[in-house]
Amino acid sequence: MSDFETEDTEETVTCLRIIIYHPKQEESPVFHALKFCHNQQLRADDVVKFGRDSNICRFPFIDARVSRVQFGLQFFRHFNSSEFGFEIKNLSKKAKLIVDNIELGYLNKVSLPDKCMVCFGEYQMLLQKQEGQSEDYFNICFELARKSLLQEKNLFLKKPVCESSSSYTQFPTEMDENE
Amino acid sequence: MSDFETEDTEETVTCLRIIIYHPKQEESPVFHALKFCHNQQLRADDVVKFGRDSNICRFPFIDARVSRVQFGLQFFRHFNSSEFGFEIKNLSKKAKLIVDNIELGYLNKVSLPDKCMVCFGEYQMLLQKQEGQSEDYFNICFELARKSLLQEKNLFLKKPVCESSSSYTQFPTEMDENE
Repeated sequence: MSDFETEDTEETVTCLRIIIYHPKQEESPVFHALKFCHNQQLRADDVVKFGRDSNICRFPFIDARVSRVQFGLQFFRHFNSSEFGFEIKNLSKKAKLIVDNIELGYLNKVSLPDKCMVCFGEYQMLLQKQEGQSEDYFNICFELARKSLLQEKNLFLKKPVCESSSSYTQFPTEMDENE
Repeated sequence: MSDFETEDTEETVTCLRIIIYHPKQEESPVFHALKFCHNQQLRADDVVKFGRDSNICRFPFIDARVSRVQFGLQFFRHFNSSEFGFEIKNLSKKAKLIVDNIELGYLNKVSLPDKCMVCFGEYQMLLQKQEGQSEDYFNICFELARKSLLQEKNLFLKKPVCESSSSYTQFPTEMDENE
């Protein structure tokens, strides 16, 4: 308390809000390893991985159809700017990663717009960046969507992108998890 | 031997040749943790870090003036192409990273041209990509330069970029390691 008036001004922290949806989220444990509505602080210089293998991935999905490592997110600073951004890279050989209308194959990467849809398999994520100042950390905060984000955003007319060698499709389908 | 004729055709592996120079490399151990003239295989989905801290960095420099993590290299695939590339990101708050004529601050990143000079502090590196097909691995191969690469390449006229808060300069200077 005594240091309160003389301490450095507290920095704001860039936050990536991730609103997430999976058509089977009610009956299957796909998101059981995620904390919702909670800012999770991450180091600015780390690559944050998402996928099935919790030994490698900071944010695991409990789903046999997800790749061990599905994608990676990294934080960076734009040139000649105080503004930060995020880059996403597809680390799955089996599934395409769709960022708005861009299809990323294995090892393709792209800088994320401040607000965008990211989809793979039956997973839908709406990512939104909230500006901050810290160059040491950023936050990720997950929220669970109650219904399909694609339906809500009238994005159903987007060209579906399927991969013949994979059971993943861009849109929710009635597939048996065990088939 | 019996499988030789029926095995899959061996893939070529993308290789990043790094010819490296430090003005005190003869009398100080800066490069003692590096293996020279030896292909070192790295996973395509990892970020390879260079810096002082060997717990974090795959390629450590033994030099108190180097940041714990100086920079990171990642492998990626160009869009709609079978070609791979490398991206470099400055992970040091103290030193600028110079890629040809581009100055990278902390958390700035850039895709590397197929052949380029990368400098930080008194370190000079000539990076050259050799194309390969593997999407699982890439190689890094270090070579030691006997004299300054900047002198050799007539790059001395490039604008020097100094950081007032740091003892790093872009060009070799006669500084005492212990000062």
